[in-house]
Amino acid sequence: MNLVVVLVAPRNPLNIGAAARAMQNFGCDVLRVVNPYHVAFREAVSAVSAAPLLRSAGEYKTVAEAVADCALVVGTTSIGHRELQHPLRPIAPAARLIRRASGKVALLFGSEKFGLSNEDLSHCHWLTRISTVDQKRSMNLGQAVAVCLYEIARAPALPSKPNKSKAATMGQIEQITQMLLEASRRSGYLNPVVASSTENKVRRMVRRLNISARDVPMWLGIVRQILWKLENSK
Amino acid sequence: MNLVVVLVAPRNPLNIGAAARAMQNFGCDVLRVVNPYHVAFREAVSAVSAAPLLRSAGEYKTVAEAVADCALVVGTTSIGHRELQHPLRPIAPAARLIRRASGKVALLFGSEKFGLSNEDLSHCHWLTRISTVDQKRSMNLGQAVAVCLYEIARAPALPSKPNKSKAATMGQIEQITQMLLEASRRSGYLNPVVASSTENKVRRMVRRLNISARDVPMWLGIVRQILWKLENSK
Repeated sequence: MNLVVVLVAPRNPLNIGAAARAMQNFGCDVLRVVNPYHVAFREAVSAVSAAPLLRSAGEYKTVAEAVADCALVVGTTSIGHRELQHPLRPIAPAARLIRRASGKVALLFGSEKFGLSNEDLSHCHWLTRISTVDQKRSMNLGQAVAVCLYEIARAPALPSKPNKSKAATMGQIEQITQMLLEASRRSGYLNPVVASSTENKVRRMVRRLNISARDVPMWLGIVRQILWKLENSK
Repeated sequence: MNLVVVLVAPRNPLNIGAAARAMQNFGCDVLRVVNPYHVAFREAVSAVSAAPLLRSAGEYKTVAEAVADCALVVGTTSIGHRELQHPLRPIAPAARLIRRASGKVALLFGSEKFGLSNEDLSHCHWLTRISTVDQKRSMNLGQAVAVCLYEIARAPALPSKPNKSKAATMGQIEQITQMLLEASRRSGYLNPVVASSTENKVRRMVRRLNISARDVPMWLGIVRQILWKLENSK
């Protein structure tokens, strides 16, 4: 399966172990962890036979780095707690889209207490959630991972269309984003007072473009040239 | 939802708490525990807001007592470890049958280490399992509960057919079973050497009859009379 499970700022090592065990049950091998609270999470867990998966888990400082080689980034949310800026799909149809995607797909889970932050969400193309009776009560992290992977594992893996253009990786998309943000800063578009919120908006906007791998060099060329001009016209 | 979650001999109080939390997420209120290893499981768990559900959990000495008021008993299994004597359904179609059942439905989960015993299974009408990549590796108990309840909660709750005859409760069925076993003992059918295995077979057979509530008195009358005759013809 071409899926990467990304746990962002998980607090409880037991939950990291539970996620690894569910991954193993449903045939998903790649676990990445962004800023775990317990640095020793690899040893702290006793998940049955999931030890190799945990040992090989990648550790990252930022979401951007954790999803850099992915073509699609899907966030999970229990909603209720914030206004959503993204399209939201129930996990069953989401699972079908994930299985049909070309390239690696990152599935992001936030911390047990706060879920994904607005900055984390700005890296996502869209969101998914598990329908529960009370949306204000979130699910346990390990159980949410299990239900999501159960749905993804059972969704049919259709061959992607052969003439579909290859998507850019999130590393390339973030590079374009950063250059565009730099251009916004230099041009005065980015108001320093609300910079972080505007940055998240720009990041989401760039992701909505669905830039193909083929178009990346041209995008980089255009923005690089603008940056050069802004720099040299002072 | 007319579902009763029955945990048979669970070892880890954290798993009981996790099951309670998943039950709350998916709108299932009735938890029953058969012979938990930790008597103090009600206090030992910290499942977010699932405390009332845990406090009201029923504690039972036997599976028979825990399912006595149910009309359908479904066991969960990860297979691999024993020969199955029961029909086995994947959880998705199983969930639809459970939602359509008339009367209470018990869903049984075995202990973390051994699953359901043959004796536990003899109380079940049929079994269900979650499809995983390696059937020899079982799922975490709390995660298995979450996936099962997720499927049951999303299955359509069709109104049961009005002219469908009401099923007998498992308490009534077990009463018939016990009298039949007694008759088998007195008549010499039940070989004491392999009695427990034969008892499980008889119990499964009686459950396959799907005796309706209406027919219970006649069944009890017939077997009671046989017992009386066996007693008095010595």
